[in-house]
Amino acid sequence: MNTIDLLQQHRSYRDFSSKPVTATTVSQLITTAQHAATSIFLQAYSFVSITDPKLKAKIAKITTRPFVGGNGHLFIVVADQHRNALLAKKAQPDTDVRLLGSADRFLASVEDATLAAQTLIVAAESLGLGTVVLGSVLNDTSALIELLHLPKLTMPVFGILVGYPNSQNNLKPRLPEAAVHFENGYQEPDTYSDALQSYQQTLQTYYQNRSTNQRQTDFSQIIQGALHATQQRTDLLRILHQQGFLTEKD
Amino acid sequence: MNTIDLLQQHRSYRDFSSKPVTATTVSQLITTAQHAATSIFLQAYSFVSITDPKLKAKIAKITTRPFVGGNGHLFIVVADQHRNALLAKKAQPDTDVRLLGSADRFLASVEDATLAAQTLIVAAESLGLGTVVLGSVLNDTSALIELLHLPKLTMPVFGILVGYPNSQNNLKPRLPEAAVHFENGYQEPDTYSDALQSYQQTLQTYYQNRSTNQRQTDFSQIIQGALHATQQRTDLLRILHQQGFLTEKD
Repeated sequence: MNTIDLLQQHRSYRDFSSKPVTATTVSQLITTAQHAATSIFLQAYSFVSITDPKLKAKIAKITTRPFVGGNGHLFIVVADQHRNALLAKKAQPDTDVRLLGSADRFLASVEDATLAAQTLIVAAESLGLGTVVLGSVLNDTSALIELLHLPKLTMPVFGILVGYPNSQNNLKPRLPEAAVHFENGYQEPDTYSDALQSYQQTLQTYYQNRSTNQRQTDFSQIIQGALHATQQRTDLLRILHQQGFLTEKD
Repeated sequence: MNTIDLLQQHRSYRDFSSKPVTATTVSQLITTAQHAATSIFLQAYSFVSITDPKLKAKIAKITTRPFVGGNGHLFIVVADQHRNALLAKKAQPDTDVRLLGSADRFLASVEDATLAAQTLIVAAESLGLGTVVLGSVLNDTSALIELLHLPKLTMPVFGILVGYPNSQNNLKPRLPEAAVHFENGYQEPDTYSDALQSYQQTLQTYYQNRSTNQRQTDFSQIIQGALHATQQRTDLLRILHQQGFLTEKD
């Protein structure tokens, strides 16, 4: 399959066979991911592989998704300026490394981590593996930080579960291009309302007819669901501060 | 070329030929990028294509990199919860959309944007195009927000310049896997100090011998450079607040 076809066939997988992802494959995924672009070359991320079944079960409990504790290799993706802080201080002990926790460097580390993570996902898919990104590892971020012994200037970003798929979901229709691609400036939704209207119908039809978990919903209801989920994670800013991020004066 | 080889051949390109990236190709890149994973399916990002040469020149000035104003198609990648806020309010006018600006949803939108951006980069590379990610569009974030008329609950993340390469940089050696991949918990740098030591030498040799812009530097000096750059962007947290992000109580 050519690469563009591969990217356009992306979907989430949550049902994996017992065929293990070998240590060689895991290592190939990581070293491939490391080739992604990185802000000022700081490579400000780390991956934690969860191979201990007890630890995996505890993380699955945080996500409230039992499949996370089952088949598949689990990575926790971490925004990481801690390594850079130590290396800077080692070379020059008076370095003010708090700057690595500023909004600028914190966001750069989240972006570095995500660029690498998406590269890992594409690499995995090209090997016939399936993946699912797990934002739900942040349902109890404090517990996750403790379980993984994450030091200051690190922050978990999301999990990725990788495995050999047992079954395949339908492709989920995305927003029309007009809704996400503008020219020379931001476009308000009323300028592409016809395209949005038609998308609402496409999405409703998709949810009614997909092969599993059929339901009546639309894009507005999905946003309401996200707002509800977010209300369970109101401590995230406090945890960011605690980890040494975003502590500069406004 | 198979996809893993393609990913491992990634490098930044800054020198593009005058061959234009056609509107058809730009559209193919965006619609491919839209297949990336997205948190709770909110697709919380937008891409702004800069096709107006005067606007491109203004953005190039912000980056302080003259090549940005030259050949290549420029995208500004935007974390975007504004569209979702309007759609939620349209369906249910009493929705408290401020929650879309919380740390949880803000980071999800940065991650959505970055997952899509990396997919766009891989798609571009598979078509023989080269890319460079431009964090430097944030050198004057307020000016960029004004130039692109970015409303509340949106934030520029980075730029991507895409074009047909005139010349190719050397591959830049990444940190050893041991420095970025841990098992079941965070590993401090003193547990992989030999690997780091050997990387420092590899990197120094790379900078001394690469085909252009040879210099004496090492990883610690790169971090110092990043800290220096960050001191020029201390207003980022204030701008995030102004855009309606991270305004929840700690």
